[in-house]
Amino acid sequence: MKNITLLGATGSIGTQTLEVVEQHPDRFNITAISFGQNIGRGIEIIKRFRPKLVAVKNNQVKNDLLHACTLEDTRVVSGLEGLIEAAVYPESDILVNAVMGSIGLKPTLAAINTGKDIAIANKETLVTAGHIVMNKVNEKGVRLLPVDSEHSAIFQSIEGHRKQDVSRLILTASGGSFRDRSREELTGVTVEEALNHPNWSMGAKITVDSATLMNKGLEVIEAHWLFDMPYEKIDVVIHKESIVHSLVEYHDKSVIAQLGNPDMKGPIQYALSYPERLELEDVKRLNLWEAGTLHFQKVDMNRFKSLSLAYNAGQIGGSLPTVLNAANEAAVGHFLEGRIDFLEIESLVEAALEGHKVIKDPDLEAIEEADRETRRFINDRVLKS
Amino acid sequence: MKNITLLGATGSIGTQTLEVVEQHPDRFNITAISFGQNIGRGIEIIKRFRPKLVAVKNNQVKNDLLHACTLEDTRVVSGLEGLIEAAVYPESDILVNAVMGSIGLKPTLAAINTGKDIAIANKETLVTAGHIVMNKVNEKGVRLLPVDSEHSAIFQSIEGHRKQDVSRLILTASGGSFRDRSREELTGVTVEEALNHPNWSMGAKITVDSATLMNKGLEVIEAHWLFDMPYEKIDVVIHKESIVHSLVEYHDKSVIAQLGNPDMKGPIQYALSYPERLELEDVKRLNLWEAGTLHFQKVDMNRFKSLSLAYNAGQIGGSLPTVLNAANEAAVGHFLEGRIDFLEIESLVEAALEGHKVIKDPDLEAIEEADRETRRFINDRVLKS
Repeated sequence: MKNITLLGATGSIGTQTLEVVEQHPDRFNITAISFGQNIGRGIEIIKRFRPKLVAVKNNQVKNDLLHACTLEDTRVVSGLEGLIEAAVYPESDILVNAVMGSIGLKPTLAAINTGKDIAIANKETLVTAGHIVMNKVNEKGVRLLPVDSEHSAIFQSIEGHRKQDVSRLILTASGGSFRDRSREELTGVTVEEALNHPNWSMGAKITVDSATLMNKGLEVIEAHWLFDMPYEKIDVVIHKESIVHSLVEYHDKSVIAQLGNPDMKGPIQYALSYPERLELEDVKRLNLWEAGTLHFQKVDMNRFKSLSLAYNAGQIGGSLPTVLNAANEAAVGHFLEGRIDFLEIESLVEAALEGHKVIKDPDLEAIEEADRETRRFINDRVLKS
Repeated sequence: MKNITLLGATGSIGTQTLEVVEQHPDRFNITAISFGQNIGRGIEIIKRFRPKLVAVKNNQVKNDLLHACTLEDTRVVSGLEGLIEAAVYPESDILVNAVMGSIGLKPTLAAINTGKDIAIANKETLVTAGHIVMNKVNEKGVRLLPVDSEHSAIFQSIEGHRKQDVSRLILTASGGSFRDRSREELTGVTVEEALNHPNWSMGAKITVDSATLMNKGLEVIEAHWLFDMPYEKIDVVIHKESIVHSLVEYHDKSVIAQLGNPDMKGPIQYALSYPERLELEDVKRLNLWEAGTLHFQKVDMNRFKSLSLAYNAGQIGGSLPTVLNAANEAAVGHFLEGRIDFLEIESLVEAALEGHKVIKDPDLEAIEEADRETRRFINDRVLKS
């Protein structure tokens, strides 16, 4: 039996993680969860999975939750402190970190410190603090298991092979909602259009990131840290069917790839069951003759400028990936609220990167400061214009 | 340094094996070779690689060879006895068996008996005597490494994963020279047309087998033995670009595949260097955006009747795969010599299978007898008609 702390239980990855857990009651058990403020869904989860610890956003949500239902064996905590308490919960063997945003970083580090394996779906952990996290992972000898479909594909394609034989990682990108539009055709696109992703059903922010390819840019930075690979050995290829989830090239020119119908439950379950594989009933089997045709296309770095900004930020490193991520998150927020145009997302990110004085090897405090400062910079620009 | 016996040194796989060896003089050394009667090429190889033992077809070829050149440190032997002597050559660590036809079987068994690893390109070894060979492989604890691109792909896609998690093997088939023709359009096709394979440059017999899909049928039987997989868990998919070399599905619906530009040097080198991978300079790197589009298509078992004959023979087992192979080899020979029509290949094979009384668990003698009898049957049919 594997005991699981699940942070971000009411989100998209959280929900699918619970679906996986439900399919294998003999293998997985939820010991602690966190959610923000979706009390209705939170209560459902608590009743169904009976976690011993629940961390919520703040004291207000905690009080509302305690008033809304009677909890016998479940303790409720709140805030960042509560999140960390859930992450390091002594009975948990593994932390599934599916919270959104930079608040996911400290719980991850705390859990690594207590020797727990981490299934990581929180992008900020590696994008902003890859150098700190990977040092800690290596020091403590824990497993950092990717939950993203692309990184899971790379992980599965390296498993059993010798890391020193790898010559290149190739991440596939669907190209998102606006794949077939030229740059000119992006002027004035609506939020609704941006949220209409062809292959994956995901949260709003990541769907927009998928359309700008910033999502792929953040994944390139994550892949750099997860697989200890220099940026010049990480490629991106547009693959609109999202069936080949990513590929690994070896120095004998052999390429190993992981494929499947797009469904996050595959990567989630693999992270939980690793190194075993368990049956997964409710995912559709891939028959390539049904897919028929798979398309691959080079990424035009001028068309998808966000991706080239991400490569650049990753290569320079230091505090710059934090700026990239924070600027993008703030700008996408303004886009979703109708304050800026789609193309302004990347010009705002570019401005933030250009305006930032890079701090080498930043500690957590410097990362938080860069994050805050960048959001302030973006908000000032948008709200004052 | 790995010492290699190479049987079938002047053939297509033999030649490419020598190219791989030449690229890594610090890793590989040719200690013994065999060839049939291509003395000119044989002498070139002897001068370049200086094997200590050379096995040729018969005494006549041996005498011609000894007259044609002065050999100082190379001993020449002949016939099946000579072939076996080369296979078990004490200094050799691995046997690369690239001879064509059922003569490849006994040397393989002899080499396994002396504890050598086997890189197997000889189809008959597993198709006709899979039950004997695999027992021996397991008993002696040697490695049986596939050289075929499809089986190498499966081998690479299972490596590092748990065999018990595999739910299906999926072999890709180019579809051969007549992929896009209907059954009606196959009447009266010429030998020249049949030999015009779209992706791979191979010998004449295997190119015809690729057009009938009998080659894939034989590979299905090989895969059954190599990977201990029941026939109902082995699928074939037509993939005309020959870039995805084969795939393995796991019971969590995750599919691992091996890809590359079509070049036999990849699988050959992997079999030689396993479990390491070495750089392979003169194979073209795969960039999927250059390939652009990959097509997959269900196999129509009525259109490609040879494949369904092969599945059937494999499933019934015993001496029937031997009959399948021998009948096909004889019939393809007659087609290549212009004696029969392309479509007669499969009707002859079908007749041979139907006329054969299956021997369960045949020993080597029974296999040889079934082979001889089948060839006689086919020859009688063709020459008397």
